[in-house]
Amino acid sequence: MRYTIFGESHGPAIGVVLEDVPPGLRLDLEAVERELRRRAPGQNQLSTPRREADAVKILSGLFEGRTCGTPLCAVIENTDTRSGDYQNDLPRPGHADYTGHVRYEGCNDYRGGGHFSGRLTAPLVFAGAVAKQELARQGVFVGAHIRAVAGVEDTPFDGIHETRELFEMLAAKPFPTVSDEAGARMRRAIFAAKEDCDSVGGVIECCAVGLPAGLGSPDFGQNVEGIVSQHLFAVPAVKAVAFGAGFGFAGMRGSAANDPFCLRDGKIATETNHTGGVNGGITNGMPLWFSVAVRPTPSISRLQRTVSLSRLEPAELVVRGRHDPCIVHRAVPVIEAACALALCRLMRR
Amino acid sequence: MRYTIFGESHGPAIGVVLEDVPPGLRLDLEAVERELRRRAPGQNQLSTPRREADAVKILSGLFEGRTCGTPLCAVIENTDTRSGDYQNDLPRPGHADYTGHVRYEGCNDYRGGGHFSGRLTAPLVFAGAVAKQELARQGVFVGAHIRAVAGVEDTPFDGIHETRELFEMLAAKPFPTVSDEAGARMRRAIFAAKEDCDSVGGVIECCAVGLPAGLGSPDFGQNVEGIVSQHLFAVPAVKAVAFGAGFGFAGMRGSAANDPFCLRDGKIATETNHTGGVNGGITNGMPLWFSVAVRPTPSISRLQRTVSLSRLEPAELVVRGRHDPCIVHRAVPVIEAACALALCRLMRR
Amino acid sequence: MRYTIFGESHGPAIGVVLEDVPPGLRLDLEAVERELRRRAPGQNQLSTPRREADAVKILSGLFEGRTCGTPLCAVIENTDTRSGDYQNDLPRPGHADYTGHVRYEGCNDYRGGGHFSGRLTAPLVFAGAVAKQELARQGVFVGAHIRAVAGVEDTPFDGIHETRELFEMLAAKPFPTVSDEAGARMRRAIFAAKEDCDSVGGVIECCAVGLPAGLGSPDFGQNVEGIVSQHLFAVPAVKAVAFGAGFGFAGMRGSAANDPFCLRDGKIATETNHTGGVNGGITNGMPLWFSVAVRPTPSISRLQRTVSLSRLEPAELVVRGRHDPCIVHRAVPVIEAACALALCRLMRR
Amino acid sequence: MRYTIFGESHGPAIGVVLEDVPPGLRLDLEAVERELRRRAPGQNQLSTPRREADAVKILSGLFEGRTCGTPLCAVIENTDTRSGDYQNDLPRPGHADYTGHVRYEGCNDYRGGGHFSGRLTAPLVFAGAVAKQELARQGVFVGAHIRAVAGVEDTPFDGIHETRELFEMLAAKPFPTVSDEAGARMRRAIFAAKEDCDSVGGVIECCAVGLPAGLGSPDFGQNVEGIVSQHLFAVPAVKAVAFGAGFGFAGMRGSAANDPFCLRDGKIATETNHTGGVNGGITNGMPLWFSVAVRPTPSISRLQRTVSLSRLEPAELVVRGRHDPCIVHRAVPVIEAACALALCRLMRR
Repeated sequence: MRYTIFGESHGPAIGVVLEDVPPGLRLDLEAVERELRRRAPGQNQLSTPRREADAVKILSGLFEGRTCGTPLCAVIENTDTRSGDYQNDLPRPGHADYTGHVRYEGCNDYRGGGHFSGRLTAPLVFAGAVAKQELARQGVFVGAHIRAVAGVEDTPFDGIHETRELFEMLAAKPFPTVSDEAGARMRRAIFAAKEDCDSVGGVIECCAVGLPAGLGSPDFGQNVEGIVSQHLFAVPAVKAVAFGAGFGFAGMRGSAANDPFCLRDGKIATETNHTGGVNGGITNGMPLWFSVAVRPTPSISRLQRTVSLSRLEPAELVVRGRHDPCIVHRAVPVIEAACALALCRLMRR
Repeated sequence: MRYTIFGESHGPAIGVVLEDVPPGLRLDLEAVERELRRRAPGQNQLSTPRREADAVKILSGLFEGRTCGTPLCAVIENTDTRSGDYQNDLPRPGHADYTGHVRYEGCNDYRGGGHFSGRLTAPLVFAGAVAKQELARQGVFVGAHIRAVAGVEDTPFDGIHETRELFEMLAAKPFPTVSDEAGARMRRAIFAAKEDCDSVGGVIECCAVGLPAGLGSPDFGQNVEGIVSQHLFAVPAVKAVAFGAGFGFAGMRGSAANDPFCLRDGKIATETNHTGGVNGGITNGMPLWFSVAVRPTPSISRLQRTVSLSRLEPAELVVRGRHDPCIVHRAVPVIEAACALALCRLMRR
Repeated sequence: MRYTIFGESHGPAIGVVLEDVPPGLRLDLEAVERELRRRAPGQNQLSTPRREADAVKILSGLFEGRTCGTPLCAVIENTDTRSGDYQNDLPRPGHADYTGHVRYEGCNDYRGGGHFSGRLTAPLVFAGAVAKQELARQGVFVGAHIRAVAGVEDTPFDGIHETRELFEMLAAKPFPTVSDEAGARMRRAIFAAKEDCDSVGGVIECCAVGLPAGLGSPDFGQNVEGIVSQHLFAVPAVKAVAFGAGFGFAGMRGSAANDPFCLRDGKIATETNHTGGVNGGITNGMPLWFSVAVRPTPSISRLQRTVSLSRLEPAELVVRGRHDPCIVHRAVPVIEAACALALCRLMRR
Repeated sequence: MRYTIFGESHGPAIGVVLEDVPPGLRLDLEAVERELRRRAPGQNQLSTPRREADAVKILSGLFEGRTCGTPLCAVIENTDTRSGDYQNDLPRPGHADYTGHVRYEGCNDYRGGGHFSGRLTAPLVFAGAVAKQELARQGVFVGAHIRAVAGVEDTPFDGIHETRELFEMLAAKPFPTVSDEAGARMRRAIFAAKEDCDSVGGVIECCAVGLPAGLGSPDFGQNVEGIVSQHLFAVPAVKAVAFGAGFGFAGMRGSAANDPFCLRDGKIATETNHTGGVNGGITNGMPLWFSVAVRPTPSISRLQRTVSLSRLEPAELVVRGRHDPCIVHRAVPVIEAACALALCRLMRR
């Protein structure tokens, strides 16, 4: 399952084309809708008051409610846009204004971030929702939670005990943490940042259960970590990816890091899962388990230093408009979507 | 520049084919040799006493000392191998014995780890040495150091002040740390682990200077973080990749995380480099800067729990043979190689 | 420039996503429209009376009249469709009804040929029109004519004397032949077939001038003939591709087939162009020159033998609906489009 | 199954890396050898007296006689080379000397054609031999014959009645024609050309039986004709590819061209096979059937006109050395190899 996302924040529409969709998948459009709502802004006071009407129109690849196997194109029209809010000469720190300007030789649609806008994650969530339904046909389920925000930590996953039920419970929460108390403290930290005209970052932890052993290969372009991370780094704001114990391995000894093999329900398993379900680039049948770091929203309404591109001199800038003090909770279904798309790709090989 | 690595640890030879090599690159074979020596084992007591004669034979793509532009194949024959040391029924914890068995339907060459062996990083270093020479033609230089081992930390990079000279200084050290005192403490920690028949993991920090702004794109498969991380995760033992502030972003606010734009030597730059030189998947002209986590060597000579694949019952195992208590220092040139190959790919687009 | 075509003949819309579009191309939408009209049906009595309103809507990748460099999605809504005309049990000979049924496990949208419909060549022509404008920026022009229909032959190209002006002259004709007299005879042959409730096939000859020497490579996936033919065989009804003298080489001797090198306007050229502008998979600076065979339209209103898929027994079938007795003239801009897309890809490397 | 061929005619070695080889294939090395001998020169007076010792050394991917599933690298050392025969300033007409010079910026190894040499088809035949053995495991068999040489025609295939036994009978002949009488006339035509210091071209017809219906897709990069032709055009000297009736379609009417569906042995089949076994880019279960045009060997010992690259002035040239007056018969196993590799790729999807 290959996906191609197109669109600019203030252009006519955004969307996605999915190729190599298996034929005969009966799409549950309500489930798709639910995933999109998890990502949508304006659901609580933590998010921007923009109303993005993420009404998806499927243009192709669906016939009598089932996927045809041919490319599936889905489109979301852009409606509530205020192009007046944007200028082009003072690149916003932390944004892609400057790099987009260089990369696209000054021709990029800069309004609202254009093709770099976080809004482009809506078609990604759509694609991920299709991928999740295909995975479910094969007994594979993906879930995630907010592992940390602004230094506040949630109860972590362990790569052993996660279940489909836990994932459904988390997906039903507007602010998906395992511990509601940790969630409440995170929200307080977000409000505090908002009051300071600032924003916060965080960590999302994601897991997939039900995967068979033997997916992937050690080779370049085919190993699990490489394929999954390539999907994750295509999500804006993701700056780090760690499988299993991740950077924690640096302080561990081999005797603690190695996951002993054991038999569980008559099948080969491991006692611990520090490796995150992958050995030598290949799934080992344990849950796939990883974390991603999400940088703080770069759009903050404080005065920031920048440079005028036209005059090549120092300048100051206050980013106006409606912005989220935190996008971590909205990014949870996006990370799940990226993971689901990666797993579909791995399972098709 | 695309690479394909082939070979098994105890087969006739290992090697690599490089495609899309730019024509006319005069290969400095001594510099290639130097890189291979940095990775080679047996240089100090920290490494296994195996003598891997990494003599590279270039079979194609080179004519009168210069690259032809056609595929370049380099081969390293396997000589010092003791196949008697290996069995196939008890998968070693932390290794790819079990996943390789499943993935390759029991047909994998398991001797010495076969295609999963760390020895396969030798052709990767060869390929990276070619890539580095091509990058140098374009004013781009890559360097790395041991950021941490066994909890002991080296002086970190900052993504601003790194230079070619620093990289050369580090590359000349057998145990490449910025601080020699930190290096000495790391070595002591490694010896301590060795005495305990155990091993340690670590973190490698890598940086590339001289990159132009505008490489990459936000799209899947084309963004800088995705391409670089895909190369890094193809290195065995790498379990996490973090760009710039990485997981540190989780505790930062946007006002601290955003890198203000400024003018430096008349060119657009950023004051800080928390983003690691990449905005929106595109290089911004600042140094590319990232860290990778390296898991502890899984081969330890302690008794470990495993499972017999043939009898499907619990078993115990002591891994015999010559093993490194730490591979982090030897992995430094491997990480540089993976980075250089990724950058060549980005620059060819 | 990579393209992905989506859509089914009787679904909501068909379209295309173009990736790797160079930024800053000022799209001449009237020229795009002209190309689409060349392909459109119902222009003369040779074509089906269907009215396909090929109004293209560009959803992304265009800003202030210029390409952004980001993916460009264009959509054509389906309007005039009569789904009642189609059944699913008796595969039409010469069509993809049966293979589509097998490939997509019975889930394909069979109405009007679905994803296999010739209508899907409209977005291809759109994509080719963009590619042509990019090629024109670089001094490369593509043209084609009907080389043969129903055994009637037009004056051939020679791969030497073709010019941009000739291509424009041909493109302005509704039935593009070099010789109007040959064109008239072809049309008579088409009408004769129509009267017999039958259809005819033909040959299209295509040429590109202005290409630099040195594009392509001998290697798999990178040679000119391979890349161009892969684009051509993605056009429905194309069954053969021949470069330069093509199958004529079989009756030639080397002394006649070899193109002697010469100097023309101070530049290296060849006296003849039997090789079609490609040596060893690489352009030699002469016009790229090739022919494609177009099979007769399979939709004919005669009684045909087939098999019932549900009952697995012989059956008879008369294909109803509006069908072209000849699609060769309408396929001319499609072949140019496929060629232009292939050349853009070659020139970007 | 992806392949990458490397090597130069007069470099240390040539070879191939095969990726995505299915594990567990017990390689019949004698059968591999037989294929290589079919391609080898010097078997009869029709070929150059060069002795190419095509001894293949398998470096990786094979363990205990079976493929491992990991990349398989095979190498053939270059031995009998006379580099003195070659110069670099006067490009040989019909060869890639000039285009290679431009493409590789003057750095190509021009000795003996370098990377463009027909000798590079030896590793291709090796790869094809592996592919054939994998196909045979799945009941698919590939065969070919010399359809025409120098205007003399062999009894054609019909895409219906070909069998594995016919293919084996043809493969056992040093000059593979269906009709021995036609073969004898072809050989006389080749000797006549040789006496005139000239060469001849021809047509090879190839067929694959046992393919299931449903391989491929109509989309770019995935359709059967596109994938097969991309493999065929990677063979030097191939200038045209025609499926089924090919250019013959141009003179046919739809009523004759359409292949009526029928039942054969209880399975859906077609009465005729003009389409060559492919509808809409997807196999229909009938034999895959196509022809390729092979241009006359460009190396002829007559005086030819060319240009001096250094002085940019007209020049004359006599190509010295040992050359084949005809390579069509030696190209037969190469075309089969390319076809087999393409089919393995199609079947793995």
